[in-house]
Amino acid sequence: MMVNMREVAIIGVGLTKFGERWEHGLRDLMAEAGLNALNDANITSNDVEMLYGGVMASGRFIGQEHIAALLADQLGFKNIPAVRVENACASGGTALRQGYIAVASGIHDIVAVGGVEKMTDVTPSEATSALGGAGDQEWELGQGITFPGLYALMAKRHMHDFGTTEEQMAAVSVKNHKNAVKNKYAQFRREITIDEVLKSKPVADPLKILDCSPISDGAAAVILAPLEIAKKYNDTPIKIAASTQATDTLSLAERESITSLKAAQISGEKAFKQAKVKPSDIDVAEVHDCFSIAEILAMEDLGFYKKGKAAKAIADGETALGSKLSVNTSGGLKGCGHPVGATGVKQAVEITWQLRGEAADRQVNGAEIGLAHNVGGSGATAVVHIMKRIN
Amino acid sequence: MMVNMREVAIIGVGLTKFGERWEHGLRDLMAEAGLNALNDANITSNDVEMLYGGVMASGRFIGQEHIAALLADQLGFKNIPAVRVENACASGGTALRQGYIAVASGIHDIVAVGGVEKMTDVTPSEATSALGGAGDQEWELGQGITFPGLYALMAKRHMHDFGTTEEQMAAVSVKNHKNAVKNKYAQFRREITIDEVLKSKPVADPLKILDCSPISDGAAAVILAPLEIAKKYNDTPIKIAASTQATDTLSLAERESITSLKAAQISGEKAFKQAKVKPSDIDVAEVHDCFSIAEILAMEDLGFYKKGKAAKAIADGETALGSKLSVNTSGGLKGCGHPVGATGVKQAVEITWQLRGEAADRQVNGAEIGLAHNVGGSGATAVVHIMKRIN
Repeated sequence: MMVNMREVAIIGVGLTKFGERWEHGLRDLMAEAGLNALNDANITSNDVEMLYGGVMASGRFIGQEHIAALLADQLGFKNIPAVRVENACASGGTALRQGYIAVASGIHDIVAVGGVEKMTDVTPSEATSALGGAGDQEWELGQGITFPGLYALMAKRHMHDFGTTEEQMAAVSVKNHKNAVKNKYAQFRREITIDEVLKSKPVADPLKILDCSPISDGAAAVILAPLEIAKKYNDTPIKIAASTQATDTLSLAERESITSLKAAQISGEKAFKQAKVKPSDIDVAEVHDCFSIAEILAMEDLGFYKKGKAAKAIADGETALGSKLSVNTSGGLKGCGHPVGATGVKQAVEITWQLRGEAADRQVNGAEIGLAHNVGGSGATAVVHIMKRIN
Repeated sequence: MMVNMREVAIIGVGLTKFGERWEHGLRDLMAEAGLNALNDANITSNDVEMLYGGVMASGRFIGQEHIAALLADQLGFKNIPAVRVENACASGGTALRQGYIAVASGIHDIVAVGGVEKMTDVTPSEATSALGGAGDQEWELGQGITFPGLYALMAKRHMHDFGTTEEQMAAVSVKNHKNAVKNKYAQFRREITIDEVLKSKPVADPLKILDCSPISDGAAAVILAPLEIAKKYNDTPIKIAASTQATDTLSLAERESITSLKAAQISGEKAFKQAKVKPSDIDVAEVHDCFSIAEILAMEDLGFYKKGKAAKAIADGETALGSKLSVNTSGGLKGCGHPVGATGVKQAVEITWQLRGEAADRQVNGAEIGLAHNVGGSGATAVVHIMKRIN
């Protein structure tokens, strides 16, 4: 019904450097990002009325659940309601949408949204197992497929149906690493070549290690407020023009198609409708490139390209920094890193910087409308946000 | 600000039997409770617009995260937004409050709230470790204390400060087992004696095994709708008159007191204010008796008794079924069982049945106002709901 809901703005953002943060625990990372966001919004912890924390698998990674209360305490938000949300790799985007609903509802004015994951305290094989919790354990992972294997199936079918090539997929990683060089928060600040991707270690055919986003530590935070009072805190509040979410089956076997993510298509369509804009109106987008093929699916699912046309367009440079639509200027999951619970919030941070004109060397000139697309698991959850600069 | 928010009602409830449900997995349990709730509300899965799922530690218990999307699929809620929330043992109450906010906000009309946990697929020691994720891993559990040990500290101090006895604590378990006999969904449908509790196996002095809630499988679900349209679905909608939540530090060492839970005190006070009722107005309450001492703390934190007075009152039968205030008519966590993610939702189911007059042998005559009190971990989260019968 969407009755009586208030408009919502982002008034502060904060990030940690993503990467192998051996010297910091989960609560340190979240405090760093959270304090950066509070400072950016010109508020203190006493101003925050509620906290949402997106974390995927802290139980598996560090033995710690009950993360939202922990973060509220660590950030000095004493006694406020705090809620951890978990939707696999879309935990961050989901947390943002819950914060949006809370502010829009009128129940709270200033709401903090954090996303965090501390992934490097376990072995790579333990991490792969924990991430597999995003897929269907009983019907798929438990039968022997790995999480990269699920995306490898999607890639193989996309290659079969649309002639997508391994070189085109590699071009996604090359573009995103190139953007990451310009982002001081990114995990991999070095360029790679198509040839390096193609010759990198095989993970799940046709995906190589350089088609895959890394295991990362990191945190991100945003502060939300009703748009009507946002200017009190920040000269350039960023309006959340749409916040949408959809689900699909966990198991690929039950889907109508594995060359598109239905949840992303649905949440994308709803987001464009809610924001009253078209794909061609978007100036800058962060999309969920957990694997190179995933960015190709995203560009098609969101309507930026017709089915089967995105891979060539990306390889031709149509989504490079400074092109008509700049995609994954942060470096994306591949270049910037993918601390799973943090990613969806980090996307909103990057879009906020871009729309404020604060993205430094990677600034998209004149960016006014941005989109963030966050996917959970192999597509059972998708969250889309469209954000606009308020002049 | 609480501007423009709609009133919210429970129009359907459903439960599974709690206990060692070897033959059923998490998704089976949730489907059973969810379908019961849909039938109770006279709706189908097509009517549901959003799902919140409260689950504490499915990653540790069954290797599965991304539970909300899984449940949405299993229940036939295809493509709707679905959000898992986790606040340790308050995951269910937290999910209910998120559903309340979503309906109150106007963003959705019909929202399903589920709570589930499948705990018996791991060893007791693995389960104890997983549950320890509710407490502070770095500063407490990691130093060697167990989760029951945290409540044992609270019990010891309560005994020291207020003269509370092991017999009085045992009386909580005796009362709750007696109530559970009358609940066909309960895990333990047998009476126990004070003597049996006192002579049962020590867990963490002064707590014995019969002071402790069990490891359980089970699920619970409620369906929410705006109060203004609730009568379309159900002749006796139950109004959610208050939905409040607060946090405290995870670690006991940082608290001002360990003989009360500040988060419960704050959320209790806010709830009575929001619902415009006093503790003496409550006819029936479900409180979080994860350990016998916890029910004593709850009765004091919520203002039903002055500090230090609840233990004797409970032992004297003042909160027995059919007394002025009937507490834990379901059998509570001790008697009915404690599938952690399900518990907060189950409390709302029991209160709904009581306020509708559908609680069979354990009906509290003329119950009009009920309260549910759900605690996360050793008190870092507390959620309180006050519910009223609408005539």
